Parts: sequence; structure tokens; C-alpha cells
Amino acid sequence: MSGIVVRNFQRSALDRLSPLAGAGVATVHEAIGRVGLMASHLRPIYPGASIVGNALTVTVAPGDNTMLHVAVELCQEGDVVVVVPTSPCEDGYFGDLFGGALKGRGVRGVVLEGGCRDVRTLHEMGFPVWSKAIFAQGTVKETLGDINLPLVCAGQRVEPGDAIVADDDGVLVVPRARIDEALTAAAARIEKEERNRLRFAAGEIGLDVYGMREKLAAKGLTYYDDAAAYAKRSNG
Amino acid sequence: MSGIVVRNFQRSALDRLSPLAGAGVATVHEAIGRVGLMASHLRPIYPGASIVGNALTVTVAPGDNTMLHVAVELCQEGDVVVVVPTSPCEDGYFGDLFGGALKGRGVRGVVLEGGCRDVRTLHEMGFPVWSKAIFAQGTVKETLGDINLPLVCAGQRVEPGDAIVADDDGVLVVPRARIDEALTAAAARIEKEERNRLRFAAGEIGLDVYGMREKLAAKGLTYYDDAAAYAKRSNG
Amino acid sequence: MSGIVVRNFQRSALDRLSPLAGAGVATVHEAIGRVGLMASHLRPIYPGASIVGNALTVTVAPGDNTMLHVAVELCQEGDVVVVVPTSPCEDGYFGDLFGGALKGRGVRGVVLEGGCRDVRTLHEMGFPVWSKAIFAQGTVKETLGDINLPLVCAGQRVEPGDAIVADDDGVLVVPRARIDEALTAAAARIEKEERNRLRFAAGEIGLDVYGMREKLAAKGLTYYDDAAAYAKRSNG
Amino acid sequence: MSGIVVRNFQRSALDRLSPLAGAGVATVHEAIGRVGLMASHLRPIYPGASIVGNALTVTVAPGDNTMLHVAVELCQEGDVVVVVPTSPCEDGYFGDLFGGALKGRGVRGVVLEGGCRDVRTLHEMGFPVWSKAIFAQGTVKETLGDINLPLVCAGQRVEPGDAIVADDDGVLVVPRARIDEALTAAAARIEKEERNRLRFAAGEIGLDVYGMREKLAAKGLTYYDDAAAYAKRSNG
Amino acid sequence: MSGIVVRNFQRSALDRLSPLAGAGVATVHEAIGRVGLMASHLRPIYPGASIVGNALTVTVAPGDNTMLHVAVELCQEGDVVVVVPTSPCEDGYFGDLFGGALKGRGVRGVVLEGGCRDVRTLHEMGFPVWSKAIFAQGTVKETLGDINLPLVCAGQRVEPGDAIVADDDGVLVVPRARIDEALTAAAARIEKEERNRLRFAAGEIGLDVYGMREKLAAKGLTYYDDAAAYAKRSNG
Amino acid sequence: MSGIVVRNFQRSALDRLSPLAGAGVATVHEAIGRVGLMASHLRPIYPGASIVGNALTVTVAPGDNTMLHVAVELCQEGDVVVVVPTSPCEDGYFGDLFGGALKGRGVRGVVLEGGCRDVRTLHEMGFPVWSKAIFAQGTVKETLGDINLPLVCAGQRVEPGDAIVADDDGVLVVPRARIDEALTAAAARIEKEERNRLRFAAGEIGLDVYGMREKLAAKGLTYYDDAAAYAKRSNG
Repeated sequence: MSGIVVRNFQRSALDRLSPLAGAGVATVHEAIGRVGLMASHLRPIYPGASIVGNALTVTVAPGDNTMLHVAVELCQEGDVVVVVPTSPCEDGYFGDLFGGALKGRGVRGVVLEGGCRDVRTLHEMGFPVWSKAIFAQGTVKETLGDINLPLVCAGQRVEPGDAIVADDDGVLVVPRARIDEALTAAAARIEKEERNRLRFAAGEIGLDVYGMREKLAAKGLTYYDDAAAYAKRSNG
Repeated sequence: MSGIVVRNFQRSALDRLSPLAGAGVATVHEAIGRVGLMASHLRPIYPGASIVGNALTVTVAPGDNTMLHVAVELCQEGDVVVVVPTSPCEDGYFGDLFGGALKGRGVRGVVLEGGCRDVRTLHEMGFPVWSKAIFAQGTVKETLGDINLPLVCAGQRVEPGDAIVADDDGVLVVPRARIDEALTAAAARIEKEERNRLRFAAGEIGLDVYGMREKLAAKGLTYYDDAAAYAKRSNG
Repeated sequence: MSGIVVRNFQRSALDRLSPLAGAGVATVHEAIGRVGLMASHLRPIYPGASIVGNALTVTVAPGDNTMLHVAVELCQEGDVVVVVPTSPCEDGYFGDLFGGALKGRGVRGVVLEGGCRDVRTLHEMGFPVWSKAIFAQGTVKETLGDINLPLVCAGQRVEPGDAIVADDDGVLVVPRARIDEALTAAAARIEKEERNRLRFAAGEIGLDVYGMREKLAAKGLTYYDDAAAYAKRSNG
Repeated sequence: MSGIVVRNFQRSALDRLSPLAGAGVATVHEAIGRVGLMASHLRPIYPGASIVGNALTVTVAPGDNTMLHVAVELCQEGDVVVVVPTSPCEDGYFGDLFGGALKGRGVRGVVLEGGCRDVRTLHEMGFPVWSKAIFAQGTVKETLGDINLPLVCAGQRVEPGDAIVADDDGVLVVPRARIDEALTAAAARIEKEERNRLRFAAGEIGLDVYGMREKLAAKGLTYYDDAAAYAKRSNG
Repeated sequence: MSGIVVRNFQRSALDRLSPLAGAGVATVHEAIGRVGLMASHLRPIYPGASIVGNALTVTVAPGDNTMLHVAVELCQEGDVVVVVPTSPCEDGYFGDLFGGALKGRGVRGVVLEGGCRDVRTLHEMGFPVWSKAIFAQGTVKETLGDINLPLVCAGQRVEPGDAIVADDDGVLVVPRARIDEALTAAAARIEKEERNRLRFAAGEIGLDVYGMREKLAAKGLTYYDDAAAYAKRSNG
Repeated sequence: MSGIVVRNFQRSALDRLSPLAGAGVATVHEAIGRVGLMASHLRPIYPGASIVGNALTVTVAPGDNTMLHVAVELCQEGDVVVVVPTSPCEDGYFGDLFGGALKGRGVRGVVLEGGCRDVRTLHEMGFPVWSKAIFAQGTVKETLGDINLPLVCAGQRVEPGDAIVADDDGVLVVPRARIDEALTAAAARIEKEERNRLRFAAGEIGLDVYGMREKLAAKGLTYYDDAAAYAKRSNG
């Protein structure tokens, strides 16, 4: 069933995508309706990286990095390689040799539902990876997987050419068909957040900025001056 | 049942509390008899922060940050906001907008049995959070919780006005009634540790500093020069 | 049954071991045939440390650090202390006082299937620990364990005098009898990796460097130009 | 600090409590406002048990069952013994000898934030335990804990004399002061659930029984006949 | 963004699907090329159930079962309801009232990436649920989700109308377009397994049945009569 | 490095071993000094099985069951097959076909640091497995492991020919050299437990049976009649 390699997919222009990295995972996630966020067990191997790019998808057998070798040849400037074992595995699929090869081809980073090794060297060369584990365990080259078929990574469906946004807050997938919407909505959200930020900076608080007071009162929110007042009321 | 907001509680003077931050979680925890340490899954979102303050307690519904908005208004200089979902949830309850609002009010930090987002910005603004996860997942504003009622956070009971000490070693709660005792005991412990440190620096070791040798011999501790000697003895 | 202390064991000369730290966990692990890697839940308490040394093994009762005190006296320059509770426990067995004592004796670091505390001070003093948790929970001094008997740490058998290599990628044990083999194999691997690195830097990829193309074709790897071509083929 | 044994506490009459076992954990939990439910990692060692009783609380050191021996003497007919290690530990604190002793004294069961052993024999003798793990690991008798002080078990505060309800759905604590309220509310809830059950059995559904339709429409719930209709609408 | 309800989807005839339940999860999973198996944390609330049906998909907010109420009305004979929170949550979304309602409509069972309660009653009424947790925690009715849109459950993509097969081995999704292929392949596999079973029963073993001996020898498999022979060879 | 198959090892006579199964995991574990107990994540796939046998050890690559096929041929009456992946993996290495083959050869059961499938059929045929997970995920036949070399399973060292005892309490390894000691000690322990059981049945309790009262008093155990007495004392 596996052993399928689809060479090409529709990529988005990088200058079109780049505002999504500027906006960041949390903001874009909000902007597109709170969908597409990968599970929190994917963590960056070092803090501070922030990327966006076109998803190139790879499935690998547990403990087998064959398909990563196949993938290298297909990578292009601005890709983010999304790697998922066909069953749970935290072996060290990815290390500095791969990092150098992908960086040389302009790949932005790797999202890996598995283990990463050589993390210090990868940090030094500035090639970011979001992975499930840091684990040096080696892999073999025996079993085929697929490249550029849709897959599920950390709870989210990814199709080749979807936009991947990743930073210290985690990893987000934006379906290719929704990228324009994401750009517009993220820009609007940033503008709105900036407005709110000014109001907050001026001392206003969310209860007023978001008009929550009446709604909360209607739901039964009840204030007591102190514990004594509450005790009196609840016993009274 | 929920929807209770107790506005005020007894706060301790900040200059009184501050030696507890200086002593640190591990030392104060020892000093007060090894109670009050929250579970190790609460981790700081960046290393190096060290705080103490008065606990302001907030319960939130899973996936719902309504009560955090209510809490902002009640916060005062020197508070530490302790946030606990009413059932396990790692959604991103807290981000940079809240961070800015709380920092502006002098809040020392947040302890959150849930998820935190915007961690890079929070690091840049120097507002520390100890959380169960880093997760950008958004929350809604539909369901009430309580403010300033006692709660359980990461295995420890917290009452409003308890002292919260947090640093790279974790999070500790010191009941308000025991703060003076904690201060005295922590000072004594630091003095004792300093004396021990000098003895250790002079080359003494715990077996002598703590007078353990006789007790260990009585328990049956047996030394062998090497594996051969042990093998001979255990077979002999 | 416990309470056994074996004072001495065969140590390897430190200048003989040091190339293993230079090679690093991932490389030595590959070089010796992918054995001996401890589980990924052991993490360094701060990034950047890289050590090698002779294993001194300690078992401790859950919540009891008695045997660590016994171990201090036996430590020598270049040792790595491997500490394992006799049942799962994440209490804070190790802190800055122990760190100072061990550092003063030339110990290279600690591998601890338990909890570590005072992590900031340990970082400042440059004494590395790889542990299962960061947890300030105190321990008692009541129950005996063993020193310098073989044990299992994070899934790997360790005998006193085995070489321990540890860095940001994790912790590796090299049996004493295989140290020469490890040195030779690691050197060879580094040389080979360097050759490969040059080829990769020159633009070659693993499919060619490792001669994978024919083997993959034989396994049935099939390329399609794009999703449309794949869809056509798979339906055709 | 520890070593406190409080012999007596206020117990509720057993025939007063027994309707809570009949109602079951899920129903009583709803009835008292969804508080007091212990974390889901506490599981019964065999299915089918259903108990209620007065909480007798015990803290134990990690890997040390001293205080369980102390507790046996204090147990009375209808007690439920709640056992919590002072730091996380899954050792086998409880086995068939304890089970026999407690059963002989009329204890209803044990809630144990640790490990249980001899589970087959306990099943055969019909003595139920809700525990975090099944683990035969032995414990020592060296370190004191406390009996009948308040504690936190699996995320919930328990005071001696609180009612503990436990069945296949988990473990619930009902504060002693709220037992009457719980009885009344549980009875009312059962009556209401029975009424609803009849309506459901007659083919009605929750949307109508709970009057949800208008509220959902107001929130924007939108029906489409099929995927084609939805696709048309969302693109239209 | 949410609040979409698609009423209808293409269902497969139940007598067509039923052989998949007979074949079981493990066999069908093999037959369709080892895809579609949900993660192992989904476990049946009682052993022995074995179902197949048409997936009706529901997303719910964390701690909110609104959409389950909406779903009841849409269920038909032979459906399997697949329920996924929009972020990780183990609250008790599903209990006996829902179980009765769904059973009355001919629903085969529920697959729930959350918590289940009333498990004893559900067992007694013979309504099976595969869930992530058993947890009585109640939910609210405030926030919308979606019905019959594609979703990801326990790592697998599910579309409305896909076939769900579930038994003691776990939960499998078979895309609707592949059901015929699954039926044919499962039948072939059963036949082949039966043939193999006869050969195994006659004393043959996999090395011969699957023709592995030569391949293994080529890979370097080496037999030694005993440990002494191996030691001699590896040192020789 | 792998691909080693050691055909034979020293087995213990089955009638010599069988009292260890009668004594059970918890008792034998106590009898031999509380060593050798595997981690609690190994659970039986069905309750009630109780076995003892000679360990035949197998390492497998992640997601690869090649070596299980090799092992079948080497199994003899009374063996217990211990299977460990070379890195963490929960794939379904073992199912009913293997179960039938091993049962036919008199194998007592399987201990598997991985996943098991066909659990219902295995239950029906009465072939017990203790595994880390129940997971139907298929495996490949590409990569070699070793047979009958020492390995680590669930935290414990196992050598071929060690005795494996397994029941509802978990899995225990008894080194071959200690089997006689284990038999004697287990018999003594059972006798002692029986004596104690009679005393407990007669109403005595552990405090007296084990002579703990004086020791506890010396450690500072302090009794208070009730909470009021304790409050008075601790404040007085």
C-alpha cells in the first residue's frame, strides 16, 4: 500500500506566507477559528524559532528513516517537512546530517511526531525542529512509507501544500485553501489586539473591553466583599 | 453552585514575604516540614524567574477563561494568581494580553494547572507563569467559576492569602498562618546550610556532618573492598 | 539484602575516555551498534553540558537519599554517579549541597532516575544532572540501598566502571569491556560522517551517498509527478 | 511535623449514608454541584463494587506503610480508608493481609493514591480498593505520617468523616457538612432522571426534554440537509 | 465557525458491513494495508463487545456535551457515533441516559475521545463505548460544535459514513470508498489465516509457512548452540 | 551487531518451579528481598492467569516481529517468552496465530514490552500475555534482533533460563541461581503469612504482630483523642 511518492504539490509563494510567521501560532489559530493546532506534546528543540512554510508530508515506518532520505530530493525553498511514523515511535529519525541537507535546500524546519537527535548541533546551525521527544536512538532503512499524501500529525490533518506555522507556542496547520482567509483574519486580529492592547495599557480591563459585565451578572456572578460576607450569605 | 467572587482577602505585606523568594522553593519547603509542594508537572515557561506573593485563587471551567477576566479587576500589587480548571484541561487560558494587564497591576506571576500561550512575549515582558502545558488552544467565555474560594492546585490546597513561592524548582504554597514560622525556619535553615556548606567546602562529608556512620552500621551497612571481596563473602 | 557497599571498581583513565564526550551520545550510540541508550525521559537540567566518566552506581529507597551520602566518600575524579530508586520515585534526591561535594571531588555529573532540586544553583556552579523530574520534595535517611552493584537505569544495565556519556541528546552507557571498541568505532564514524558531510555539503544526498535508489525501487517505491497522476494511476 | 494520630472523628450513621451508594458516584456528583470527584487515574481493582462510608485519612511516606498499620486499630464499621503518599509513589502499600484485617473490622473499602497488590485475593474476599496502580512492590516501616488530618487525594480535599462514595465510575468525596444536602439532591435528581428516562423511553430526546432548540438556534446552530448543501452554502 | 449540522450522509447497508465485525479489528486492519487504526488509549468500557457501523461524527467543546444532544436526533439504525472534543478533555460526556436513547435508535456504539460514565449501567444494557477515560465529571451545554463534518479521532481521520469496526483490540476506521475492498480483503485474509492456522496446527511454523529462512540467513542471522558457543565465537 | 540466536539455555525442571506460581508474584517478590519486579505498566490481557516458567528472551526491532518467528522454533514446554523492542514501541507484535503456535509447544505465556492483539481469542484459548498495550497495529519482517541474550524488560534484567512468575499482580523475574533460595524463602514466607493470618483472623493487628508500638513511640508518634485535642496541643 505504501511506497507512493508524489513529487510535486502546489506551493504558496513565500512572501505571501511570511506574515503568518509574524503573527505567530496563537494569533493565527485564533484568526482562523481555533482549528488546526497540533497537540502540545510537539515541542521545539530550542526556544525562539518562528517559521512558516509549505507542508511536505512524509510517513515513515516505526524505527525506519528511509522515506526521509527520499524526501530530501523533493524539498524546495520554503518547505516545512512534516514527518509521522505509521505507529507511535520516538526514535531519533532526524539529526544534523539531515538538518544540513534540508537547510541547504532552503527548508524552514521540521515537524516530527517522533524523536530528534543532535539537538545541540541543530541549534548551532539554526535549523529548528518541533518533535515529540529528544532521543538518539538510531533507525534502519528497510521499509517504505509515503510522501506527499495527506496524513494526521499530532491530531491534525495535513495535506501537502498546507501552510505550517510554528513557534514557541507550538505548531499550526492552515489548509492551503484558507491561507488568504488566514492572512486577512490574522491582520484584522492583530489590529484588534493592538487596539485592545492600547486600551489595556491605558488601564481598561477585559470585563469592559469585551463588554462582559452584564452577561456575567445574568449568569449569576455574585460578588462578596470578603470571606465573612460570603459565609454569612451562604448560611443566611 | 459556582459564580462566587470574594473581592478581598487578607494579604501579607510584600517586604515581609520577600525573604521567602530569596530562600527559594527547596529551602522553604524543607523549612516548613516538607509540605505544600505542588506536583512536578507545573513548570516555568522560562528559566530564572523567582517570585513570592499572596495567592489569589481562580477556578475556571474547562476551555473557558471567563473568570480570569473577572480576576484581573481584583488583583493587587504582589498577588500571585492561582488558576485551576474544574476538570483537567490544558487549553491556553493565559497569554500576553493577560500578562500585560496583570503585570501592570503588580502581579508577581501566575500558577496555572492548564496551558499557557504567547510564551515568548511573556518571557520578553518578564512575566513568569508556571503551567502544566504550553498550548495555544483558545478558550470561550460562557461558564462561571469562583474567585477566592479555597481550591486544590497540582495536589496542594491553596487558600486566598496563602503565600506562593515559585522558582525553577517548582511551586510551593505556605499557609498564611504559617508564614512567620516559614520565615524563621527558612532563615535558620539557610544559616545551617551555610554552616554545612563551609564544612562541605572544607572537605567534610554528610556521613560526618550528619553523624550517620553509626546509625548506618547498625542498620547493617557493609563495606567490601571490591567486587571480588563481595563475591567471596556472599558465597562464603 | 541491601546495604552492600563495594568501595572500588576498575576505572578507565580519563584521557582515554574523553574522546567519547567529544563524539557525543548520538555518534557513540551509532558506533557501538545502537545499544546502551537510556530512555528519553532522562533530560539534562540545563542545556549544553557534555560529559564522560566512569559509572559509580547507587540504588536508593523511594524517598530516601541515605546511600547518596555513603556514595560521596567513594567518588573519585572522573566518576559519573548513577542513581536509581528501587521503585519509581521522582523525589528531589539531589541538590546543590551534594552538587558542591561531588564537584569538589571531580565528579563529572549525575544520572538520576528520580528528581533533582536546586537546579538554578547547580546550573550556576556548572554541575550537570540528567534526571527524570525537577522536584524539590525532600527525602529521609532511613533505609539502605547498595553501591557499586550492577543496576538498571532508564532501561539500560549499568555496571560500575562502565563509561557514561551524556549530553543534550541523552545518556548512553558503554560497557567497560567495549570502551576501546567504542573509541575506535566512534573515530571511524566521525571520519565517515565528515566525508559524508562534505558530500552532502557539495549537494549530494543520502539516496546516492548510501546507494539506496536501486534497493528502494526493488521494494516498490513509485514516483508520481503530482497528485493528479497518482489519482489517475491508483484508479486506472 | 508528622506522626500525628487523631483517634476519633465524627462519623455519620451508615444507614443515613447508604442511599449515596445506591445513587452512585455520577448521580451524587451531579447532585452536589459537580464537585469532589477524584481524578480518573484512581480505578477499582475489580469491577462491580459500590460503596459508601466515612473517610478515615492516612498519609504515608513513599515506599512506607507504617501508618497503615497504625490505622487498622482505629478503623470502625463503615469506614473507608483514604491513603495518600506524601509524594507520588505507586508501591504496593496494600494487600490481602490488610484487606482481611480491615474487612474484619467492617471497613467498606480503600481509596489509595498508590499501588495495590494481591488483587486476585482481594477480589475473592470481596474487599474493594480504588488505586493508582497494581504493583507488588514491597514497602518498609520506618517513617511516620499522619492519621485523620485533612489531606488531598487525587485532586480532592478530604477531611476525616467526609463521606466517600466509590463505584465503577470512580471516587467521590462529599464533605460531612453537605451530606444531608447530597442525600436530598441525589434523591431529587434520581426522581428527575427517572422522569426523564420515561420520556426518553417514550422517544423524546434531550433537545426537547431540556428545551434546547431555541437556545441553540440563537447561538447559530445551522442545519444542512447533506454535505452538498453545506458545501454550496459555505461557498455561496 | 462551528455550529454546522449536516443531517444526512451516505450510509452503507448493515448486512453489507456486518462481516467486518465478524472479521474483527486486527484482521480488517491487516486486510486494508494497516491503516486507520485509532490510538491504543481508546479502550472498551467492558470486554467482549464487537461492532461495526456507519460513522456519525460529532465535535464537542471541552466540558460541553451540547452537540451530543443534537446528534441523538440524527442517529439511525446501525450508526456508530464518533465524538471528539476540540481540545483534549476527559470529562464524562456520555452516560446511561444517552446510552438508552442511542440504543433505542439502533446505534451500535460510541467511540469517544473523552470520558464515559455510568459504565456499569451501560454494561448492563449492553451498549458499548470505547473511550479515553472513565470519569464521572459533568459537562455543560453552552458551546456549539459540528456534526457530520470530517474530524480526527485518536490519530485517524474519520468522515461521516466511514465504517467503524471496534472490538477488544481497539477501534478501526475504514473509509467508505474502501469498504468493498475491505470486505474482499478481509475474507481473503481469513481464508489465508485459516489455511495457515491448519498448517500451524499441524506443527509447521512461520519460518517455513512464510518462507523466511533464506532471507534471514542472508541478513546474517547466526545460530549458536548455546551461550558458550556464542562466547567462543564472539571472542574468537 | 544483532542477529544472534542462541538455541539452548539451562532450563529448570517445571515441577521444581511450579510452587513459585502457587506462591504468586507478591509473595515471591517479598521472599527474595524485593528485587526483580517488572514495572506496573505490564498488565495481563485478561485477569486470573498465573504462570511460572523458564525465560526465553527475544529482542525485536520497533514494528518488526521477525525474531518472534525465529523464537517459535526454539520454544519448549514450560518456557515463558520475554519480548522487548530495541526502542519503545507498542505495535501489535503478538496475536492468536503466535498464541496457538506457542501454546502447542507448551509455552506458559508471553511477557511483552509492546502491544498485543487478538486478545479475545487469546483469552478464549487460555494463552496469557502480559503487555504494555493492546494494539492491533501490524509489524513487518525486515530487521533482525537477538534470541537468548540477556536483556532488560520493564526495568528488570532477564537472562535466558531465569524463572518468570506472572499473575494479576504483575511480572517477576527470579535469577536462575536464586530459584532454590526463592522456593525456600517463599515457602517460609507462606508459612509465616499463614501464622500471621491466623493471628489477624483472631483479631490481632500488625502493630502487635510486628512489634511496632515501641518503635513508633520512639519515633514520636503521638495520639490525640480527637481534632479538638490536637488543635489544643498544637497551639498550646
